[in-house]
Amino acid sequence: MSDLRPTGTGTDLDPWLATYAERASGLAASEVRALFAVASRPEVVSLAGGMPYVRAIPRELVAGAIDRMLLTDAPAALQYGSGQGLPRLREHIVEVMAEEGIAASPDDVVTTTGSQQAIDLVTKLFIDPGDVILAEGPSYVGALGVFKSYQARVVHLPMDADGLVPEVLEAAILEQRSLGRTVKFLYTIPTFHNPAGTTLSAERRPRIVETCRRLGVLIVEDNPYGLLWFDEAPPKPLQTLNPEGVVYLGSFSKTFAPGFRVGWAVAPHAIREKLVLATESAILSPSSFNHHLISEYLETVDWRAQISRFRDVYRERRDAMLAALGRYLPNLTWNEPNGGFYVWVGLPEELHSKQMLPRAVRELVAYTPGTGFYADGSGGREMRLSFCYPTPADIEVGIQRLATVVNGELELVRAFAGTVSLAPRRDDRAVGAPPPDLR
Amino acid sequence: MSDLRPTGTGTDLDPWLATYAERASGLAASEVRALFAVASRPEVVSLAGGMPYVRAIPRELVAGAIDRMLLTDAPAALQYGSGQGLPRLREHIVEVMAEEGIAASPDDVVTTTGSQQAIDLVTKLFIDPGDVILAEGPSYVGALGVFKSYQARVVHLPMDADGLVPEVLEAAILEQRSLGRTVKFLYTIPTFHNPAGTTLSAERRPRIVETCRRLGVLIVEDNPYGLLWFDEAPPKPLQTLNPEGVVYLGSFSKTFAPGFRVGWAVAPHAIREKLVLATESAILSPSSFNHHLISEYLETVDWRAQISRFRDVYRERRDAMLAALGRYLPNLTWNEPNGGFYVWVGLPEELHSKQMLPRAVRELVAYTPGTGFYADGSGGREMRLSFCYPTPADIEVGIQRLATVVNGELELVRAFAGTVSLAPRRDDRAVGAPPPDLR
Repeated sequence: MSDLRPTGTGTDLDPWLATYAERASGLAASEVRALFAVASRPEVVSLAGGMPYVRAIPRELVAGAIDRMLLTDAPAALQYGSGQGLPRLREHIVEVMAEEGIAASPDDVVTTTGSQQAIDLVTKLFIDPGDVILAEGPSYVGALGVFKSYQARVVHLPMDADGLVPEVLEAAILEQRSLGRTVKFLYTIPTFHNPAGTTLSAERRPRIVETCRRLGVLIVEDNPYGLLWFDEAPPKPLQTLNPEGVVYLGSFSKTFAPGFRVGWAVAPHAIREKLVLATESAILSPSSFNHHLISEYLETVDWRAQISRFRDVYRERRDAMLAALGRYLPNLTWNEPNGGFYVWVGLPEELHSKQMLPRAVRELVAYTPGTGFYADGSGGREMRLSFCYPTPADIEVGIQRLATVVNGELELVRAFAGTVSLAPRRDDRAVGAPPPDLR
Repeated sequence: MSDLRPTGTGTDLDPWLATYAERASGLAASEVRALFAVASRPEVVSLAGGMPYVRAIPRELVAGAIDRMLLTDAPAALQYGSGQGLPRLREHIVEVMAEEGIAASPDDVVTTTGSQQAIDLVTKLFIDPGDVILAEGPSYVGALGVFKSYQARVVHLPMDADGLVPEVLEAAILEQRSLGRTVKFLYTIPTFHNPAGTTLSAERRPRIVETCRRLGVLIVEDNPYGLLWFDEAPPKPLQTLNPEGVVYLGSFSKTFAPGFRVGWAVAPHAIREKLVLATESAILSPSSFNHHLISEYLETVDWRAQISRFRDVYRERRDAMLAALGRYLPNLTWNEPNGGFYVWVGLPEELHSKQMLPRAVRELVAYTPGTGFYADGSGGREMRLSFCYPTPADIEVGIQRLATVVNGELELVRAFAGTVSLAPRRDDRAVGAPPPDLR
């Protein structure tokens, strides 16, 4: 072990292979990210990404905020800032959270480079290799990647139409403990879940919070979509029920724009202090420029009206997607989200979402296979369809193409029933099919 | 271990205390960051921080670049981007690095949230708890914080006026290996060192690189200041001597502005791929807005002329500082940096830079005690003086005040020689002196 001279192993060309940390083996390309390259070709209707429709922001709102900001704040905006984030911005974040019923002080807020960094910091702070993180199954692919990179053991909890089931949560905690494992936190997206589209019911929220409180399990509540409801406002965040037991994550990526990479965490005092140290260690300080810019935007622009515009845009697209699914794919199952970006679709059992993807790309439609949303690679009978980015007309075209793909696959599978397995077919491999093993 | 119900221990009020990861114990507030609050009071002349003088950038240069960028790139600038960074920006980064003699391809570049994030990612990628990182003594405080947060063992290598000594480096590697320890990389700032101000000589550079190559130790070369030379250009970066053995870190924080938090790493192919995955895991993607903005700036503004303006500003300030030290503090020792932001000062052995700081703040001058720049808390006889931010006139006032502090301390210590130890004095404690132990 003391001689790490890089030597080729014959199986790998990386001379530094022997020197990586153990955790580096957990780094793998996310299936969603890999799709970006394909889905960005203009002829493809992408129902895959989670990109907000930023063209719904009038450009002059942003330009105006920048001009005003530069007049008064340029030197500070160009300089290093506070690791915790610009105090003025943290005051505005408190106002934004008040829209959802959260009562917090600017001191409780730690800004991050998108809420992704908050997930990374919380995981760095709490997870020793082998520790258990409980998460919905499916769960956010970007969080699962972080958990893996810190060598956590992810235990998925199934959901029903009302989200997490309190009894299932309690049983899972007790079971993991009976196996001698350390349960560090519950990672949950209770509102407009990514990818499942579900919302934890008002009735279950206090029961989930109480179960965690009683059993001493921290809750990490990820809530990027909460303000983007379509029909009626969702129940209040879990954080409001027990601020001392919840690390709450918020973001401007969906209510303003992801290009600034500004998110935040609200955490109990002691955890918040450690999060500040952790982010200072990771990036010194966030982008002052972006903090000043967003502060100016929130002070001088009617941001509530902008969020309302976003709601209208996404409501129309959700409606388009549900209508198209009903029209073209009545043989599948799906849920009807009341907010957020996603519809979660169940496939007939003969199909596999990851194996079908190359055929879909040939038909110029992209989606996200369910497999990326489970730590164990299950989810082959599920897929995530995003309605956030394409226009309603494109959504209709995309679903129509998807129907061609699904029905074509079904015909093929049924024609060869008994002789054709679920392994990829020759044609699929030709356009870059996934490996035959299904993880 | 399986029951993590939060319970107070009686010594700490944090109910989650028992649940943190082991690495969380390495998170501690940096002495430099803690100084920011004090040093930002307007009546204090701060020779403490490393803030570039961003007022030297004409505001209209930035405003113009933003206006042009928003006209053409607004939708992309507001959207999520590539994890590796905007291709157009990576092309410009290659041009910037060519100024220092580096030949790289945009594919080799991974952008980061300031080069601080690059330090974090490299450390995450390579360091298992207990692994050895070699670093100059003193070294950059922000890097030492990261190393500690991943439970690395930092071994400091002394420098002389020409920087690292190749024989000392080789002996240290061999000694660590003989102790059964794994040496993962050498972290070095060969040019205009922070905090030491020294530059590794041209003669030693190939010897350092060759020693690491021969012994199979990766080099992490941190070079934020290389373009900010005053008298003559420094020798070429280590990266140019062995691109396969060096992870090179660059930054726009000193040559443009830190408020955008854009830095980068150039790494051998296999390491670069892992760095991309690591940054996607940590933050999904960097700020598209800032990438588009900096690209526009580099394309349409004479950035070489701006760097030249920075050189003139900092050269004048360095000269002011060296002249003032000669005039007011001839009893101290210091080096004469040819670039960068810092002068490293040696104190008479009766003094302790950390213990003296409260008195300095009372005299309205701030500096950074040497203790922050060593993993083991040594450095009490040293201090870092920054000439980057205050005006030449303020630098003179600051050094004059520092002379009052130093000479006052010396008088006191010498008057009580034999009866007064180096423990903090009563007056110091009253304004918040460090604890009696010198860490």
